[in-house]
Amino acid sequence: MKLAGVKALGFDVFGTVVDWRNGVARDAAPFLQRHGNADADPLAFADAWRRQYQPAMERVRSQGRPFTKLDILHRENLDIILPDFGIDPASVPAVELDELNLAWHRLDPWPDVVEGLTRLRRRFILVTLSNGNVRLMVDMARRAGLPWDAILGAEPARAYKPSPEAYLRTADMLGLKPEELCLVAAHNSDLAAARACGLKTAFVLRPKDQGLGQHTDLTPEQNWDVVSKDFRDLADQVAA
Amino acid sequence: MKLAGVKALGFDVFGTVVDWRNGVARDAAPFLQRHGNADADPLAFADAWRRQYQPAMERVRSQGRPFTKLDILHRENLDIILPDFGIDPASVPAVELDELNLAWHRLDPWPDVVEGLTRLRRRFILVTLSNGNVRLMVDMARRAGLPWDAILGAEPARAYKPSPEAYLRTADMLGLKPEELCLVAAHNSDLAAARACGLKTAFVLRPKDQGLGQHTDLTPEQNWDVVSKDFRDLADQVAA
Repeated sequence: MKLAGVKALGFDVFGTVVDWRNGVARDAAPFLQRHGNADADPLAFADAWRRQYQPAMERVRSQGRPFTKLDILHRENLDIILPDFGIDPASVPAVELDELNLAWHRLDPWPDVVEGLTRLRRRFILVTLSNGNVRLMVDMARRAGLPWDAILGAEPARAYKPSPEAYLRTADMLGLKPEELCLVAAHNSDLAAARACGLKTAFVLRPKDQGLGQHTDLTPEQNWDVVSKDFRDLADQVAA
Repeated sequence: MKLAGVKALGFDVFGTVVDWRNGVARDAAPFLQRHGNADADPLAFADAWRRQYQPAMERVRSQGRPFTKLDILHRENLDIILPDFGIDPASVPAVELDELNLAWHRLDPWPDVVEGLTRLRRRFILVTLSNGNVRLMVDMARRAGLPWDAILGAEPARAYKPSPEAYLRTADMLGLKPEELCLVAAHNSDLAAARACGLKTAFVLRPKDQGLGQHTDLTPEQNWDVVSKDFRDLADQVAA
């Protein structure tokens, strides 16, 4: 049986569980119509916002910034990208920017997710193992009906993936050895970091995570413990 | 409207949500039959185990012991009380003691809990704000069907109630001001500590929490924001 000995699945969320790109673009569109250049593209806006994601976390991971929750990093990153879309952050009411920042709380799951999670939960404890903060994950789960058993990951661990502490403290909070926890993710780099910590690994193909021109994470780059094409397929393969 | 401005309810669990005393006694009974004195009383055993609870946390709260999850404290406390019931801890296989320690993961909710929480969840984010560790809370919730949005409290906060950090870090992880979070608890001392941190407070009467001879927490000792006789009554009062 696949994933024998595994007690819990920890899920990457942005890209793996939810479609961040179209969700952010949907909420950005009316904002850009009000404030942006006439030709401002909501999908390009979502991509630009996301490009600031790793650099912002890197300042926490390796440049000495104290742990800062993702909502705050997202809000700072928004101020950084606005000028590229013809918008002076100082010209927009702060409350409107704060509201746009919540676009990340309102992302839709891929169509296979709720059914797949519901089946997987019969066999495994299901937790988030995301860099998203607790409130973001709670709002998303309530809106989309995601049946998590606990919201874990970066904020409770106070460390951003791929730092080892993000994976190892999640296992510890579940009272599990690393090999009893499996990361489910659409990104080879995340799985590689989890495997280096001793976790089991399940790759899920999400070919539209980065948009139609996606050229990364289209194939498994290591012999992950499971390779699946969506959450229903994952549930089929692990007999859940 | 009661609790206007409150976005989330944080629940004390042992005694408020679940009946720890009868649950522990139920699992202790066959263990005592195998190993204990002929007259060993399972309810007395549960009470003795629980009496070690506050002193063990006090070593973390104020005597310099690093944060240690409740499963470990419970297991240490079990070794402490066994001789009082005629049992030498060294004479019992460790696996059997570890299994008995999981009695705390298998406690039943009071009869009004699941319906009350289900209704309250329509209006509020619901989280645990317990001294129990994450895995204990997850196992309990899965077994009893408790619809938490997140498992917070002592272990994610790395501080035991009534230390202020336990309440304040829980509010922070929810992105809330203290007054936007309400503690729901059957114990006046817990509510007093939460109020001192700025949280709102809801008292729930649990007259059998400590057994039939209970003489504490039978009435509200301050003008708590809500005083209710069970979770259904709480839902009625806050129009959930």
